[in-house]
Amino acid sequence: MKSKNKKTLVIGAGGQIGKILIEQLENKGSSVVALVRSKSKAQKFIDSGIETVVADLEGDFEHAFKGCDRVVFSAGSGGATGYDKTLLIDLWAAKKAVDYALNNNIQHFVMVSGLGVANPDEFVTEIKPYLVAKYFADNYLMESGLVYTILRPGSLINDNGTGLIRTSRPVKFSDLIIPREDVASVINYSLSNDEMKGKIVELFSGAESIETAFKEETIEVNNL
Amino acid sequence: MKSKNKKTLVIGAGGQIGKILIEQLENKGSSVVALVRSKSKAQKFIDSGIETVVADLEGDFEHAFKGCDRVVFSAGSGGATGYDKTLLIDLWAAKKAVDYALNNNIQHFVMVSGLGVANPDEFVTEIKPYLVAKYFADNYLMESGLVYTILRPGSLINDNGTGLIRTSRPVKFSDLIIPREDVASVINYSLSNDEMKGKIVELFSGAESIETAFKEETIEVNNL
Repeated sequence: MKSKNKKTLVIGAGGQIGKILIEQLENKGSSVVALVRSKSKAQKFIDSGIETVVADLEGDFEHAFKGCDRVVFSAGSGGATGYDKTLLIDLWAAKKAVDYALNNNIQHFVMVSGLGVANPDEFVTEIKPYLVAKYFADNYLMESGLVYTILRPGSLINDNGTGLIRTSRPVKFSDLIIPREDVASVINYSLSNDEMKGKIVELFSGAESIETAFKEETIEVNNL
Repeated sequence: MKSKNKKTLVIGAGGQIGKILIEQLENKGSSVVALVRSKSKAQKFIDSGIETVVADLEGDFEHAFKGCDRVVFSAGSGGATGYDKTLLIDLWAAKKAVDYALNNNIQHFVMVSGLGVANPDEFVTEIKPYLVAKYFADNYLMESGLVYTILRPGSLINDNGTGLIRTSRPVKFSDLIIPREDVASVINYSLSNDEMKGKIVELFSGAESIETAFKEETIEVNNL
């Protein structure tokens, strides 16, 4: 089932995945709202005629949800800031986004999560504090009652997308990667295909088209 | 109803509140296990004949729960470390403690939380990231199915305890304080009085005995 006329709020539109996603949604004529942190980041969207809301995710950003049907949370504090921002953005802003989505009858919430978030103890890694924050953000969404899709991509790379993915983990650690463009494509696919609702999946570069990968994928990863 | 022969695991026994609590429990002949991070912190307890477990809260510490009936989580990463430790200790270790408590049929879990944790957006404060971590730790406990008491003291001071408290907020910001010794006394009281089960309360220095304050206190603060 395809749905094309719904309006999608992209939280973190100024981020690398967010920018690609906005472009993809625009290209197929889907209605979008770009939520960005600063006026400087907004200008490019405004110049392209895209509905844009400038708001600080550390404050109240509920007004951005008005009139939207679907939400993508692809915001992140990024590697350049401290773990205080991980707590305030990756966890607390995500929690507030879920609350706002409930208040505004959002029909589908797509969360960009990450590999390892299902079980922060699984890998011994220096980003474990980040995985802990994302674990609780994902759990809050799962328990919210909202219709959700949670996408957990491997390490993000800037290569062009291939449109070919896999949802089971490759054996080699160095293969736990995926281009940001392909993640954006899976978000896009998730917004348009009801079969993606309720799914929690890991994402890597692979050999199957997105459609085939999800048709064949029946196992759902769930950390509850 | 009093219960005196149950064994209490104190997580964070090397901390300031933990040390006072252990002493109080020992003085009344209650069975305790002190969980501390380092052998150097353990020595004083061992010298006093107190059952002591040395374990890193960033690793697996489930063995400390064996044979215990009740748990107090008063561990904290403290102000001297970064927010990475806030995520790993105040949030993730607390989450693991709840899981271990479930696995080991712990009958009562007392969490030392803090003022402002019910709603991290309430105060504009530089410790907001800490409040966010504690918010999710408290929520995880509340939703776990365990019997809990959540204590949310104001700013902790090192003055001697008076045994006199209040659970409603004083008007003056400077009065949002309480000696650590009084917090330990309320934990101690919580472990011995069934009326404290299921309670989520804020704590400040006041004018009533602990017993009177809780007999009169019927309002429960709940952030769910």
